[in-house]
Amino acid sequence: NKHYKIAVLAGDGIGPEVMTEAEKVLQVVADKFQFGLTLTPALVGGAAIDATGEPLPAATLELCKQSDAILFGSVGGPKWTGLAPDKQPERGSLLPLRKTFDLFCNLRPGQIYPAFADLSPLHPRVSSLGMDVLCVRELTGGIYFGEKGRSDTDAFDTQRYSVREIERIAKVAFEAAQKRSNKVTSIDKANVLQTSILWRETVERVAKHYPGVTLEHMYIDNAAMQLIRSPQQFDVLLCDNLFGDILSDEIAAIAGSLGLLPSASLNGKGFGLYEPAGGSAPDIAGKGIANPIAQILSAALMLRYSFGEEDAARAIEQAVQHCLAQHIVTRDINPKSTYGTAAVGAAIVATL
Amino acid sequence: NKHYKIAVLAGDGIGPEVMTEAEKVLQVVADKFQFGLTLTPALVGGAAIDATGEPLPAATLELCKQSDAILFGSVGGPKWTGLAPDKQPERGSLLPLRKTFDLFCNLRPGQIYPAFADLSPLHPRVSSLGMDVLCVRELTGGIYFGEKGRSDTDAFDTQRYSVREIERIAKVAFEAAQKRSNKVTSIDKANVLQTSILWRETVERVAKHYPGVTLEHMYIDNAAMQLIRSPQQFDVLLCDNLFGDILSDEIAAIAGSLGLLPSASLNGKGFGLYEPAGGSAPDIAGKGIANPIAQILSAALMLRYSFGEEDAARAIEQAVQHCLAQHIVTRDINPKSTYGTAAVGAAIVATL
Ligand SMILES: CC(C)[C@H](C(=O)O)[C@@H](O)C(=O)O
Ligand SMILES: CC(C)[C@H](C(=O)O)[C@@H](O)C(=O)O
Repeated sequence: NKHYKIAVLAGDGIGPEVMTEAEKVLQVVADKFQFGLTLTPALVGGAAIDATGEPLPAATLELCKQSDAILFGSVGGPKWTGLAPDKQPERGSLLPLRKTFDLFCNLRPGQIYPAFADLSPLHPRVSSLGMDVLCVRELTGGIYFGEKGRSDTDAFDTQRYSVREIERIAKVAFEAAQKRSNKVTSIDKANVLQTSILWRETVERVAKHYPGVTLEHMYIDNAAMQLIRSPQQFDVLLCDNLFGDILSDEIAAIAGSLGLLPSASLNGKGFGLYEPAGGSAPDIAGKGIANPIAQILSAALMLRYSFGEEDAARAIEQAVQHCLAQHIVTRDINPKSTYGTAAVGAAIVATL
Repeated sequence: NKHYKIAVLAGDGIGPEVMTEAEKVLQVVADKFQFGLTLTPALVGGAAIDATGEPLPAATLELCKQSDAILFGSVGGPKWTGLAPDKQPERGSLLPLRKTFDLFCNLRPGQIYPAFADLSPLHPRVSSLGMDVLCVRELTGGIYFGEKGRSDTDAFDTQRYSVREIERIAKVAFEAAQKRSNKVTSIDKANVLQTSILWRETVERVAKHYPGVTLEHMYIDNAAMQLIRSPQQFDVLLCDNLFGDILSDEIAAIAGSLGLLPSASLNGKGFGLYEPAGGSAPDIAGKGIANPIAQILSAALMLRYSFGEEDAARAIEQAVQHCLAQHIVTRDINPKSTYGTAAVGAAIVATL
């Protein structure tokens, strides 16, 4: 019988409390759709620094290697901001996890839900047109991982991309577009960067294998502008690591509902790390008011992409939609709401 | 007596028609404030490619060298998009001009004018709080000008910054903040990039000389998000070349009024290139409906920064404000307006 081993890295801030709800939801769908689960917690981020001195302890990495997927909460907080960059909770855990497991593909959907269009900081004349984009971000290359260095008087970073790296992420974007609205907008700065020229050429070539998908190229500066002016024009955004970092957060801001946005980081073998788009929100941690939906939807993405449990994934997504429609939401979504983290989690469980 | 020589590079699309209005305005303030002007036109961009094969002909560059400032229109259009990157109108003219004249400092103000808050694509609950930011962008360094190259299978770009380059642009930002609201937000990706760590350290050191100015650091991804969520929190944004390219366009989108936004690109000796933030808008070129205000305000910035003619600059800005208040605007600002390019220019001239 099917059995999945999940490394549960709840992390800091609101991470543990929203993770609790996601775990409950996972147990329910496991029973319902008849698969087994082992959920094993491990330290990561600031909590791991406090306990072991390292944001990603060897034991945590080892657990991840023994698992079929990583369910990640969120890490970081004011306590650890003074540390050197590679010791910091976020960077010190996420970058090595991405590199170790070759998680080259980051998927970040961003939506303006019609019923919640007012959450968007965009004008109703724009937000009422809706937004439904999937940001496909390259996650293990580019300027993040190129050669870098410094002296007392200067510093450098290198952005490097190979045809192979561009091809594999482009394929993901085109395949995703086929299941959506058949449009890919590839983001680059081909008027300035050699890596962008190679990016554009390679994406053009990959596009030939997807004749049903429309490809357009857009400069990063224009994309940053167009997302605000008319986000409804986009379907799939294909981005390198740095541009994807920027645009996926811009998209999250436009959606206006960080607490609803999951993400998936995948390698080519079905292994993945799943985490909410939002941060650890230390200001509201421990108060029982954090929105668990992004964490729960991240668990749904894990079922879909790493385990192929499409029915279970969809059941969770439908239960979430049901609760949203019933206005069973935390106060980030509706300031007047009296539902807390556990109540929203319980409502989703009950719906399932 | 004071006499200024200006290289007038009108370019393509709406460039020539809005430039005509800016020239009229300049002639009027020259009479009024008693200085002399020589306005010499030269080819640039697509128009120059058509005539000479080059986006920045040697004769144009020579004229710029003989001048006290460059008033630039806008370049580019569908006709030239197929050319190689360094032959394209925009990149092929702007990048060499920036490098030749060491125009390391790009100033791009972005405002939500209370009377025109509805132009902003942001929700009234956000736009009603206003925005008044100055983006100070480093313009001659970073990944734009670092070593780059490619083979058949990969490509690379290098981002390099020296302490000296960071210091000189940081000083501009702090000095600008002193004349504004005494706050600098420095943008970087110091959790990933060595150049950003050097950037942050150097900016910290420069800040010590401006104790009245508050400094904060923000990651680029967070800044892309915060600008949409609460743009009123910013005063001066200090950015490297690439991040400034992205955020200044995001700011322009948020302002919602590209036709009102000027920009200045300066070196350390008072020489500068002044241009509207918007593009050549080929779709409306030749129709007499383009907004001349961004070009006219660019001329005002030229009077201020290159010639020290503060009174003349302010007179232009006040005349523009007066026309805006009277709703003498083109239809990008008010779709019901019947004023064209020349009528708005004439109204500003008449006000002066
Ligand atoms: C923490 C940081 C290194 C990371 C990134 O830039 O990739 C984060 O911003 C993200 O998007 O997951
Ligand atoms: C044309 C291009 C090279 C240029 C840039 O990226 O600097 C433009 O986008 C700008 O902002 O002036």
